[in-house]
Amino acid sequence: MSIDLCSMSAAKIANCISVGELTAEAVMVSCLDRINARDSVVKSFIDFDADRALSLARASDQQANKGILRGVPFAVKDIFDTVDLPTSWGSPIYAGVQPPRNSSCVELLIRAGAIPIGKTVTTEFAYFSPGATRNPHNLEHTPGGSSSGSAAAVADGMAALGLGSQTAASLTRPAAYCGVFGYKASQGLIDLQGVMGLAASLDSLGLMARDIDDLILARAALCGTALPHEITGYSPPQKLAFFRGPHWQEADHSTQINCVAAVEALASSGLCVTDLDCPPELYPLSEFHKTVMAFEAARARYFEFRNHPKLLSDAFYSLIEAGLSTSRADYDAALAARDAAESVLANLFLTYDAIITLAAPSSAPAGIDSTGDPLFSRMWTLMRVPTVTLPFGRDTNNLPLAFQLVGGFGADERLLANSRYIAEQLQITCTIPRL
Amino acid sequence: MSIDLCSMSAAKIANCISVGELTAEAVMVSCLDRINARDSVVKSFIDFDADRALSLARASDQQANKGILRGVPFAVKDIFDTVDLPTSWGSPIYAGVQPPRNSSCVELLIRAGAIPIGKTVTTEFAYFSPGATRNPHNLEHTPGGSSSGSAAAVADGMAALGLGSQTAASLTRPAAYCGVFGYKASQGLIDLQGVMGLAASLDSLGLMARDIDDLILARAALCGTALPHEITGYSPPQKLAFFRGPHWQEADHSTQINCVAAVEALASSGLCVTDLDCPPELYPLSEFHKTVMAFEAARARYFEFRNHPKLLSDAFYSLIEAGLSTSRADYDAALAARDAAESVLANLFLTYDAIITLAAPSSAPAGIDSTGDPLFSRMWTLMRVPTVTLPFGRDTNNLPLAFQLVGGFGADERLLANSRYIAEQLQITCTIPRL
Repeated sequence: MSIDLCSMSAAKIANCISVGELTAEAVMVSCLDRINARDSVVKSFIDFDADRALSLARASDQQANKGILRGVPFAVKDIFDTVDLPTSWGSPIYAGVQPPRNSSCVELLIRAGAIPIGKTVTTEFAYFSPGATRNPHNLEHTPGGSSSGSAAAVADGMAALGLGSQTAASLTRPAAYCGVFGYKASQGLIDLQGVMGLAASLDSLGLMARDIDDLILARAALCGTALPHEITGYSPPQKLAFFRGPHWQEADHSTQINCVAAVEALASSGLCVTDLDCPPELYPLSEFHKTVMAFEAARARYFEFRNHPKLLSDAFYSLIEAGLSTSRADYDAALAARDAAESVLANLFLTYDAIITLAAPSSAPAGIDSTGDPLFSRMWTLMRVPTVTLPFGRDTNNLPLAFQLVGGFGADERLLANSRYIAEQLQITCTIPRL
Repeated sequence: MSIDLCSMSAAKIANCISVGELTAEAVMVSCLDRINARDSVVKSFIDFDADRALSLARASDQQANKGILRGVPFAVKDIFDTVDLPTSWGSPIYAGVQPPRNSSCVELLIRAGAIPIGKTVTTEFAYFSPGATRNPHNLEHTPGGSSSGSAAAVADGMAALGLGSQTAASLTRPAAYCGVFGYKASQGLIDLQGVMGLAASLDSLGLMARDIDDLILARAALCGTALPHEITGYSPPQKLAFFRGPHWQEADHSTQINCVAAVEALASSGLCVTDLDCPPELYPLSEFHKTVMAFEAARARYFEFRNHPKLLSDAFYSLIEAGLSTSRADYDAALAARDAAESVLANLFLTYDAIITLAAPSSAPAGIDSTGDPLFSRMWTLMRVPTVTLPFGRDTNNLPLAFQLVGGFGADERLLANSRYIAEQLQITCTIPRL
């Protein structure tokens, strides 16, 4: 019974509680049991207060809170400020630092009835240097990064919903590796107040869950947007583009054929899916992404570079050095290339409802010394468009595979609705690992 | 002598120090003397450590720091995190809260050699409820808000440079009322990491100084952009638009005729200045600005609304209530109207080098219970374009008047260069009040 509750989707939890079939306490107990059973090896959480989470759940059961995420335990990447738990940004510099308030995202999920269960491991400053988290589907493999802990916690049933972020591939990659749904919002359209910034042009909010409806509910909680049953006149996507892109050959064979299988299954279900050649404006974007990230990160995190250089990893120190030696002219050229590519992409969305493309070059690589390659997300993050990662298929090692859907800038609700339709066509379900 | 140093521009301070004609210590002593003499009545600063500021100046004199703002004392609005002084956001909720790091803007000015002299008064959460600051040109009048303290400190010679921000008119209005130059950056193009957010679509960085060159230097420090002497091929503006706009009749007579006088003086100097009728898309923007601000502020500051309602002013509490009762559809409509207006404005900048328009409806109103009317900035802030406020003229009470120049989105450097040219044509100089 305990396992069943912790494997429920956020949508189902909220619904069952609202009709009196379930208590928030029972759900929380189940998640805490799961954490007790598993997190000593998965290591999703960096900070955690079981008593507090349980008392919040009990308090929720006493309230007449009608929030759309009532009683849903959610995991918070440790770059989001929380008033009840420290926020250390994955860096020893800020170990134990206690913010005086919640970040607005955390606060708005609480407003919708959700309950923060704990802070999850992030890579150092949401960049590449990994934490201790392991992939719940195979502990010898990376969960991806930087939203490592939230992805692993959601995949393992320790929380129904996870807050993350993306500056390169920090949401898409861990979602893909851990086999959960991931949503990266259009850049700048969800307030990141109280969230550590790495590169202001790129930083985007992200959410992870085991059901696409959970992402839709959480977005509604954050943005005040309509719920699926309130949306009238939704029609399924008419035309999808299958975009192999400039890096297709850098993906491994099983990832390639899995993505093609998804495309073929969607075509079989009656959707029109057309091959889309890479427009020339998009080819160089992955490199331009690096330029923008380094230039901006060097300014956003100059404080730590100046004051605490010995507490930075070599990789992060090198990022700041690279950014400081990048000229404004090179940075401006990268942004101009982005602007041109965004125009081309916006025109494509006049023809296509969404773009299907790879989420990562492979399943989760072995080892936890690296969080894998961000290559397949850089261009989309740079172009600021929303993406949804859909878990689909497994490789020969039984590790999750995935693809991503890309939508037009600002058309997040439509992308989520289309992703929901596509997940239904492909009968995607996420299951947590058996104990 | 002491007064002379504290009235020097940032550009001159940095230059004199770099050629050995002046020490950072002497400049800091002069500013501290001015603060001692004046701030008990002007009340610019909320937090302050004279010993520390002095020791930083002495340390600067010992270094081979070649920063472009070497030795320049700068004032920091109390919504910017600082590692050495508390950051309380103008609210008793956060009185004495000590951040663990500097906001990136503060850090980048320090990197350029500038020295933080103290934290300046802001209205509550950079909204409308005023602090104790008075206008240094007439203590019975408001300095404007929300960047009240930075404007007053710069106007009075307590600091050469002031950091501020703008969500409605929080930079333009205090700059105009206090008779200093003000620059509001293109929204989103300068990282606001570590700065309190009120409305993410609107919040913009701002700088104040007594010389236009200081704004150019400070922008270069923040953004890595070129310095004036490094810019080749700059040509003066060819064509300016004089925009009375939909609210012209709400400005008082002396403000109107002062702005017309500036326009006529520029025309006499050989510039082509053309009347620009208000495009229909811009008419409703001031109202739409209120919708966007309320909707976003309600989410950004929901934490304080939920947890500390009794510590909020009535005005701020009402703002959050208004935002919570604003529908997503109304918010989306306001943003759509903004998008349409931005397109119209961008087209205008194909014809005009800059737009001249009013900065405020009057000189600083009497009394300090209100910070004045933000009306003349709302539409520009909503359209995210950069603005420069130029102090020009005085009213019959000898209070400063001003106008503002508006540039194309992202064309901040060109706007600042054009503002410099125009300030030269009008022979604008800022002088601090005599003791």
